[in-house]
Amino acid sequence: MKINSAEILCVGTEILIGDIINTNAAYISQRLASLGINQYHQGVVGDNPARVKKFISEALERADLVITTGGLGPTYDDLTKETIAELMGKKMVLNDEAHRRIKEYFDSRNRVMTENNVKQAYMPEGCIILQNDWGTAPGAIIENEEKGKVVVILPGPPREMKPMFETGVVPYLEKSSDYYFVSKNVNIFGMGESAVETEIIDILKNSLNPTVAPYASDGEMRLRVTAKTESKEEGEKLCSDMIEKLKNTTIGEYIYGVDTCIEEALVIKLTEKNMKIAVAESCTGGMVTEKLTTVSGASAVLDGSIVSYANEIKNKMLGVSQEILDTKGAVSEECALAMAEGVRKFMSADIGISVTGIAGPTGGTKEKPVGTVYIAVSTDKKKECVKLTLRNNGREYIRNVSAKNVLHLALKSI
Amino acid sequence: MKINSAEILCVGTEILIGDIINTNAAYISQRLASLGINQYHQGVVGDNPARVKKFISEALERADLVITTGGLGPTYDDLTKETIAELMGKKMVLNDEAHRRIKEYFDSRNRVMTENNVKQAYMPEGCIILQNDWGTAPGAIIENEEKGKVVVILPGPPREMKPMFETGVVPYLEKSSDYYFVSKNVNIFGMGESAVETEIIDILKNSLNPTVAPYASDGEMRLRVTAKTESKEEGEKLCSDMIEKLKNTTIGEYIYGVDTCIEEALVIKLTEKNMKIAVAESCTGGMVTEKLTTVSGASAVLDGSIVSYANEIKNKMLGVSQEILDTKGAVSEECALAMAEGVRKFMSADIGISVTGIAGPTGGTKEKPVGTVYIAVSTDKKKECVKLTLRNNGREYIRNVSAKNVLHLALKSI
Repeated sequence: MKINSAEILCVGTEILIGDIINTNAAYISQRLASLGINQYHQGVVGDNPARVKKFISEALERADLVITTGGLGPTYDDLTKETIAELMGKKMVLNDEAHRRIKEYFDSRNRVMTENNVKQAYMPEGCIILQNDWGTAPGAIIENEEKGKVVVILPGPPREMKPMFETGVVPYLEKSSDYYFVSKNVNIFGMGESAVETEIIDILKNSLNPTVAPYASDGEMRLRVTAKTESKEEGEKLCSDMIEKLKNTTIGEYIYGVDTCIEEALVIKLTEKNMKIAVAESCTGGMVTEKLTTVSGASAVLDGSIVSYANEIKNKMLGVSQEILDTKGAVSEECALAMAEGVRKFMSADIGISVTGIAGPTGGTKEKPVGTVYIAVSTDKKKECVKLTLRNNGREYIRNVSAKNVLHLALKSI
Repeated sequence: MKINSAEILCVGTEILIGDIINTNAAYISQRLASLGINQYHQGVVGDNPARVKKFISEALERADLVITTGGLGPTYDDLTKETIAELMGKKMVLNDEAHRRIKEYFDSRNRVMTENNVKQAYMPEGCIILQNDWGTAPGAIIENEEKGKVVVILPGPPREMKPMFETGVVPYLEKSSDYYFVSKNVNIFGMGESAVETEIIDILKNSLNPTVAPYASDGEMRLRVTAKTESKEEGEKLCSDMIEKLKNTTIGEYIYGVDTCIEEALVIKLTEKNMKIAVAESCTGGMVTEKLTTVSGASAVLDGSIVSYANEIKNKMLGVSQEILDTKGAVSEECALAMAEGVRKFMSADIGISVTGIAGPTGGTKEKPVGTVYIAVSTDKKKECVKLTLRNNGREYIRNVSAKNVLHLALKSI
């Protein structure tokens, strides 16, 4: 069957009352885009058979494929699977393999399989079963050959949904698409969305294949370059030509990478140069190091870091002089520079970076309002401090943007 | 106007291609639930006037209120506002106050206001304007008195949307609802969803007011208790009675708080006991400290932490003996205990906690597979180490669940 368009329906009252954030829709959307399957609409409904049925009926009028997540749990109000089976005119039958796996799942954890878990092993008759190696609820691909429509049902927990999607759904969809889509994200730091758009408005408006679209997030932005072609190679070529073109505009100097993030770009560059980094953090409280260590392989470039919340620790461990702390304060250029140098020496690293500032909500003064942050870098050849004056958009915003800025400062410095 | 039901429509191609996660829908959903406004359906469409119009027309048949986010940007493809004005039969007129504010916004940042930003100051005639103190695009409340329907349009960036919602939309909605809803989250650690449900199935099934519903997330779970009443006081009473009832069941010992999270519960308890904590982190790479310092007021209970990725740092700074590192390895009970004790002494803290383990994707062995994590706690009176054997659900899952577990271990230990 040819699948060119899809809709996603996420089922769960917990989404409608805002108890969980719908990351599943984002994940599946991104993968569908990369597979060249268009999506124009997505929805969320509660654990309500009538609304599930109505959404899917309408969605199948508009799209070739509907993917649902959620509502497959063992509990009495999880009814997605049963509702879809009814809609597609299929009986529910016990799947022996699913039953065996669920039992094994409980046995291996020394837990008792409760009666309600058996319900998870009943599947619509004649469908492709997606066994669940990561939890208990199997998924399914249910085809209606006659109408050329497909419904895929997946469990709600992301740690089950994602691998099931990758191993079971992607191979199925790859056989069903006419085009290859190749997408690249061009990463930009230090320039706002409006400014970028003004600089390259002609490219944004006139590029049809590949298209170029701007996306902004806290403190940074991306240009997404997307080519639609009949071969993967052709798509890659179109994208790399466009990226070259972008690098040759006035925004070129703000581009720090493609399909990366600052921490990843930094770990890669440090690895290439065989350099070690150390971090001294005050207001970011470990976030800079945490970001660096999300990158697999960070252990090769980072031995350790120090979170120095208290002045005493800044003094005792990082060697920030009592005089600086007394006369300039912990939130100052002098302190940031001393922290960066101190942690570099303490950890015997090649580059030391530091953050000290006022993340709020309290602690701001007229002279140093919330959002005042100093970031610094120290190597054996240079030292540099930058003062950030961030909008008071909340503690997490200030911490996050500060962390990205100091990582970017390190990236530029090596 | 009476508003009892709502739908949310998030506009943005970037959501449909999975480039951003739809946190706005979660935020607004949670607030609507707390205001007693029901939501049965929500949607996402791209920057496409026809689909925006279709969704809103249909949603207004089902609900009293439609809230949109996104599509208010300065760029040529942002058309939500214009589309809704057309649908509601309103002309677009220049709002002088909005125009002045946008100009001021750019002036104060020493940036030039580009021509496309003026578009953001045009608003549907006769609506309630929600000025934007956090960005450039104003929002609006557009009423149709005749049909008793309301459309609220809000900007897409969460840092603009949230405060605008709180200051402009919430007061408007509070005047329009018949009921008070009071919700409390009962926080549980150390017991899975199925097990909790089996223990309290009667309460889950038979409680109508307040209702009790289970939600699981990485490594922990919550029971959401929701009462619908005519007064806030009555709702609070119904909820606290139910919470007492839950505490007296077999799950009671696993309840660690209400409307909190582990890091917050820990900071509060440390503050009460006037105790200081210090953290030594290996595989979590700063995440434990980062979680603690998201809590405002953490500086009173945390002087500092050490991320000791390399064995040398574990030895030099935390005093883990070379013998332990050589014979037991960095991922061992002995190392975890020595790290916890070392950081407690180093930071002159009352309690030291540590994490060391294998977060993957590489580094696992047959003896110590990915997901093997040791967490430890040290005070002057006791020391304790717990071995976690986590599912290999990815590096971030292992780090996150490990961090929560060590925070919970600390909470139980004081």
